[in-house]
Amino acid sequence: MYPLPIQNLIKTFGKLPSVGQRTAERYVFHLLKSGKKDVGELALALKNLSDTVKSCQICWDFSDKNPCNICSDKKRIRNTVCVVSDSQNIQIIEKMNKYNGLYHVLRGVIKTDNPEKIKDLKINELLRKIKGLEIKEVILAFSPDLNGETTMMFLKNKIKEANPNLKITRLARGLPTGSDLQYADEITLGDALKNRTENN
Amino acid sequence: MYPLPIQNLIKTFGKLPSVGQRTAERYVFHLLKSGKKDVGELALALKNLSDTVKSCQICWDFSDKNPCNICSDKKRIRNTVCVVSDSQNIQIIEKMNKYNGLYHVLRGVIKTDNPEKIKDLKINELLRKIKGLEIKEVILAFSPDLNGETTMMFLKNKIKEANPNLKITRLARGLPTGSDLQYADEITLGDALKNRTENN
Repeated sequence: MYPLPIQNLIKTFGKLPSVGQRTAERYVFHLLKSGKKDVGELALALKNLSDTVKSCQICWDFSDKNPCNICSDKKRIRNTVCVVSDSQNIQIIEKMNKYNGLYHVLRGVIKTDNPEKIKDLKINELLRKIKGLEIKEVILAFSPDLNGETTMMFLKNKIKEANPNLKITRLARGLPTGSDLQYADEITLGDALKNRTENN
Repeated sequence: MYPLPIQNLIKTFGKLPSVGQRTAERYVFHLLKSGKKDVGELALALKNLSDTVKSCQICWDFSDKNPCNICSDKKRIRNTVCVVSDSQNIQIIEKMNKYNGLYHVLRGVIKTDNPEKIKDLKINELLRKIKGLEIKEVILAFSPDLNGETTMMFLKNKIKEANPNLKITRLARGLPTGSDLQYADEITLGDALKNRTENN
């Protein structure tokens, strides 16, 4: 058996997503081998995170400011809300430099195999937001997989109930750039045909 | 761009073995979503590790005692040293309950693609130990892969130089239990034939 402080850290690392016993052991012994400086650096980075990062009370993204930089940016269009599952998705959309509206981070998706977790999602916060007069369009920007589709369907119904006049959109489905027609699945090809665009 | 404390923690997690940018991001946002308690727990476990775990100055394993439990155990046979690459290997051997000698943790192996790292290994500490009169046998218990074989060959020569009368052994090679002859590789099968045992 490992000494208790080693066992404890293995257990704590094991709570991170997809980290099992063996991976957690590797992390702990890597840190032990690299010495106190690296352990201290990680502990300090965690403390700083805990001390300074908070939830933006408007979009529920994590930020060192509340409201966050995007929500407090006067140049942003305030009548469009893009709903994403996680903070990381905001980064992806922002990198494109093609969206100038606001965001709402749901903090996850509805998981068909664990439907109780739905209470942890920022759904009521979204519905409260769209009940106001300011919002005109909600973009549901989830991955088009099973959990993403379930979440979008659920949100669409809830949003319609709460504010029937709102425009609800989702990201276009179709063929990805560089793909080969021959290997496209039926649903993707069907979507691409149905949503065909003019090519003059 | 993420806020600075998030970026910092992503960078720090990224120093763990096999953790890239995406995995580090997942860890950080998982912690943010689970809340301050989990972040604090991990920071505390790291602090405890740093405060209490030290290197045993005899075998170089990590322990909360110096010398460690094994090195200070009077019931252990003190003339046999089993050399392993990492602390985790001690656990594997101890679990069998079939070895009652001492250990020496080399803290890694000689990597053929990064030979400079050899100076971080506890090789001189091993040589100093075996120069005494007490040690009679050194077991080289490394994995029989490229780096393991290189390390064993290197150590064997160094040990012979330092103490020519020492018995140097290595773990037996052969067919693993449950394997199929048909799929055994040539080297393994050759070793199994060469080191065949009597079966009366």
